[in-house]
Amino acid sequence: MLLDDDALDSTFAALANSTRRAILARLAEGSATVKELAAPFDLTLPAVSKHIKVLERAGLVRRGHLAQTRPCAIEASRLRDVSTWAEQYRSVWESRFDQMGAYLMKMQMPDGTKGTR
Amino acid sequence: MLLDDDALDSTFAALANSTRRAILARLAEGSATVKELAAPFDLTLPAVSKHIKVLERAGLVRRGHLAQTRPCAIEASRLRDVSTWAEQYRSVWESRFDQMGAYLMKMQMPDGTKGTR
Repeated sequence: MLLDDDALDSTFAALANSTRRAILARLAEGSATVKELAAPFDLTLPAVSKHIKVLERAGLVRRGHLAQTRPCAIEASRLRDVSTWAEQYRSVWESRFDQMGAYLMKMQMPDGTKGTR
Repeated sequence: MLLDDDALDSTFAALANSTRRAILARLAEGSATVKELAAPFDLTLPAVSKHIKVLERAGLVRRGHLAQTRPCAIEASRLRDVSTWAEQYRSVWESRFDQMGAYLMKMQMPDGTKGTR
């Protein structure tokens, strides 16, 4: 797997905040200025700017070059990396559920028959 | 989506460290004691214990009750949550690649023909 450790460190750190995750969810619907982002989140402009800077440093958001507004856009490739990273554990969580399913089956049929009870 | 914000905060924070991610990768292969985890990572026992505590608080690791050793095991359901969370952005990164593909196609065929150049 070609995932960069330092990049994952900063991506996960940036995602460890519900406001930043909400900002990403908003930006997934389309670009927005800091001012547009501040309103629904009931945050001050400096507070939003600070969150955007963390997301930008983590490569999760990029900003445009329009002088006054510098609109923010989501940068999804790091989110793809997060998905790729987590997916490598799919077999672990699926086998865990298989085991749980087998256990529940056994609980429901203590006599070992294939009944419908 | 039924993902808990506080749980995601602590999960992402715990994952924002390459040593902790490496410990999880090791535990995905099977349970291990703190002592067994310390050796390959060239870490002291207190350093590993500290990382394990962070992973345990984040619900990513659980510890057994064997008095001396208390073996550590991976708890994969939070990793499934991380995957579920990231997957909601799949359409964003896929459309980004579609756009890039279309752009590259256009670059290769400036005259708009469906040539094979």
